[in-house]
Amino acid sequence: MFAKNFINEGGKIMKIEPRTLPGFMELLPNEQILFEQMKEKIEKTYQKFGFLPLDTPVLELSEILLAKAGGETEKQIYRFQKGDTDLAMRFDLTVPLAKYVAKNYGNLSFPFRRYQIGKVYRGEKAQKGRFREFYQCDIDIIGDGELGIINDAEIPSVIYTLMKELGFGDFTICINNRKILNGLFESIDQKENAIQIMRCIDKIEKIGKDKVKEELQNIGINENQIDQMLEFIQISGTTDEKLEKLENLNIQNNSFKEGLNELKEVVKYIRVFGVPDTNFKVDLTIARGLDYYTGTVYETFLNKYKELGSICSGGRYENLAQYYTDKKLPGVGISIGLTRLFYKLNELSLLNAKKYSMADVLIIPMVDDMTKPIELATALRKNGINTEIYLNDKKLKVKFKYADKLKIPHVIVLGEDEINENKVKLKNMETGEEKLLDFNANEIAKNIK
Amino acid sequence: MFAKNFINEGGKIMKIEPRTLPGFMELLPNEQILFEQMKEKIEKTYQKFGFLPLDTPVLELSEILLAKAGGETEKQIYRFQKGDTDLAMRFDLTVPLAKYVAKNYGNLSFPFRRYQIGKVYRGEKAQKGRFREFYQCDIDIIGDGELGIINDAEIPSVIYTLMKELGFGDFTICINNRKILNGLFESIDQKENAIQIMRCIDKIEKIGKDKVKEELQNIGINENQIDQMLEFIQISGTTDEKLEKLENLNIQNNSFKEGLNELKEVVKYIRVFGVPDTNFKVDLTIARGLDYYTGTVYETFLNKYKELGSICSGGRYENLAQYYTDKKLPGVGISIGLTRLFYKLNELSLLNAKKYSMADVLIIPMVDDMTKPIELATALRKNGINTEIYLNDKKLKVKFKYADKLKIPHVIVLGEDEINENKVKLKNMETGEEKLLDFNANEIAKNIK
Repeated sequence: MFAKNFINEGGKIMKIEPRTLPGFMELLPNEQILFEQMKEKIEKTYQKFGFLPLDTPVLELSEILLAKAGGETEKQIYRFQKGDTDLAMRFDLTVPLAKYVAKNYGNLSFPFRRYQIGKVYRGEKAQKGRFREFYQCDIDIIGDGELGIINDAEIPSVIYTLMKELGFGDFTICINNRKILNGLFESIDQKENAIQIMRCIDKIEKIGKDKVKEELQNIGINENQIDQMLEFIQISGTTDEKLEKLENLNIQNNSFKEGLNELKEVVKYIRVFGVPDTNFKVDLTIARGLDYYTGTVYETFLNKYKELGSICSGGRYENLAQYYTDKKLPGVGISIGLTRLFYKLNELSLLNAKKYSMADVLIIPMVDDMTKPIELATALRKNGINTEIYLNDKKLKVKFKYADKLKIPHVIVLGEDEINENKVKLKNMETGEEKLLDFNANEIAKNIK
Repeated sequence: MFAKNFINEGGKIMKIEPRTLPGFMELLPNEQILFEQMKEKIEKTYQKFGFLPLDTPVLELSEILLAKAGGETEKQIYRFQKGDTDLAMRFDLTVPLAKYVAKNYGNLSFPFRRYQIGKVYRGEKAQKGRFREFYQCDIDIIGDGELGIINDAEIPSVIYTLMKELGFGDFTICINNRKILNGLFESIDQKENAIQIMRCIDKIEKIGKDKVKEELQNIGINENQIDQMLEFIQISGTTDEKLEKLENLNIQNNSFKEGLNELKEVVKYIRVFGVPDTNFKVDLTIARGLDYYTGTVYETFLNKYKELGSICSGGRYENLAQYYTDKKLPGVGISIGLTRLFYKLNELSLLNAKKYSMADVLIIPMVDDMTKPIELATALRKNGINTEIYLNDKKLKVKFKYADKLKIPHVIVLGEDEINENKVKLKNMETGEEKLLDFNANEIAKNIK
């Protein structure tokens, strides 16, 4: 019984210092509004493409969550015993999705297109900009046995729509195909080292060409092979030129040919989906350092803020739920780490906010009888206006300060004079402009919207 | 390292049975859509009254969460050690709010009006309709030092708006004031036993008058006192008649007089806030069995489904954050246990759903070249229509079955004929009606909305 410890001998309650765990984001209201706006835009975009909502538990059996895991994931996981049960908090939304699809296979319609926006947990070392609790915003398209490559072209169209919705113009969706890389390795007889090499190549933006070369040598790749690889990943030009140059490499193994065909198909349909060439490119250096992806891979960058890293990544995988079912469930998806993204954008003052306030208007009553102010508030709400009414007995100055601090864009002052004349005074807090309007919610609403 | 255990001697992956913890709700997509709709309606209603969003961590220091707790709460809590830190998952949204307000006191504007919709955790005995992970949807208005009684009248107006929004007409918001009850106890010299007596009275709807009488006798209340009490809580009539009868009891202690005045004021303004007398009543039997509330208390019932219990409850408290700060922070608020409510309404087929599908329309391409179908999908999305395009190569019948199972309300079939004639065939899946329309997203959108 904790509580008892905190009552001292005089019977007074001892105060506990109110604090939040490090690595857990907790925002002040004005920032929280911005966060909610971003979250809502992401959700509405996912819905626009017909993705279905999913909400799985934060807690699962450890056995379920750790079916595949190992290494870092297992060290970071929040795992504990409750009674006889070995529990863990989810560390991503992919493993719960795999469990869900395997569990509900017979009740789902395929392709199963779902979005999930939820908190995940990783007990990482706390440091600035790193979070232990953070939102992931995922979409995935899961096929039953097979899933057409054209689905890989719809994903960038979701990213494109979303970036526009979030107010970004200058961004690039980078696309590659793991089969092309695998085919290249096969052609230079380095298939065995493929995963290791890809992890290494993945770092080229971060550590530079020379460092990558050095690391590759350490793996045991010879000079000639390294040169071929670096030549390959530095293929340049327009998207169509790159595709042509890849073709001209004349690599004949199946993996390479399949990958190139897929990439061509994806590029063709990305354009049909309305994504302009200025917002996507083929980038042969991206590999997504996971052995999870097997085909198309995506990363998304804000061109002026590459230091943010990829803000939206994902790809195609061959088998979502192999730990839980024999059914073959190929899929393609992306994930946005919203908490970190919000934190970084906020730091850079890059949040494109339409509004900072939840209320559209604050009604400030300057009368004893609150009847008229309350009636107006109710009527405005019915007209679709988020309306707050200042119900506490304070001086006018204090009430205006409140509106100001909450960044409420409009204020209506209602005093005896206005009520007697059946008028209201509407003040635009941004411009300072004041209007005298009839006491008519419909008309007032039009002046607020 | 879990993973290794699941690879057998032949190198094949052993399957883990995909399952979800008992007491954790996980819905199929069609139900999840209904759930999301309810959640969104609650959120939009809270926003309409200008409440600010808040999102606090699921994990907190145990010391913080258990500052006040004891008894049941402490047994049910999910609590564990990670490294040197004693952590717990939140069991409600009130304690985190108290911490938040105490922590950010200097940065908040008062009255601080916040809503929070989030999951909370209680390791209860699992049984049908009881959840270990569930959503709470809370609003609270917190004053700095003081908070006018008129705020207590706004809360029922939020409940009323919300119930209407959720499609309920026949509901009653029950209102009482703890000070009236306390005053009554004082007048019959049972002040010491007030909390115990109120807990007992609170059960009158559940266990009946006789059982309550028996329990009160066990506490040591004499026959005469019990009769006075039961007479009191059975005061009947219209709201105004009840208020008059309370007045006529002529109880003179401060608590009673204060409580009655507050209740009168609340009733007066509830009406001004536009809540009709058919949807609220003074109910002297409700006490909310917690020692937390100090003034107004609320419960809300669906009149035809009283067995659901109160679906939205709360009240006025004197001091939100006494365990964390010396500041006096009175408040008033309510909470909805959404997960349980959804479960029960679903069970009773009482969910008033506008739509069951995320997509408004499914485009079914019957051509090899997907260009036209994709162009139409993109154009429809720009016109505000949630549009899914069936991208996999299946027979027409399979595609229609998909639309049917997902309850998508409209289908557009695009074959060679339609494309050549620059037309589309729009089918209303509910009525079966088919329309031949021009290949014009704007016009098609109008027929879908």
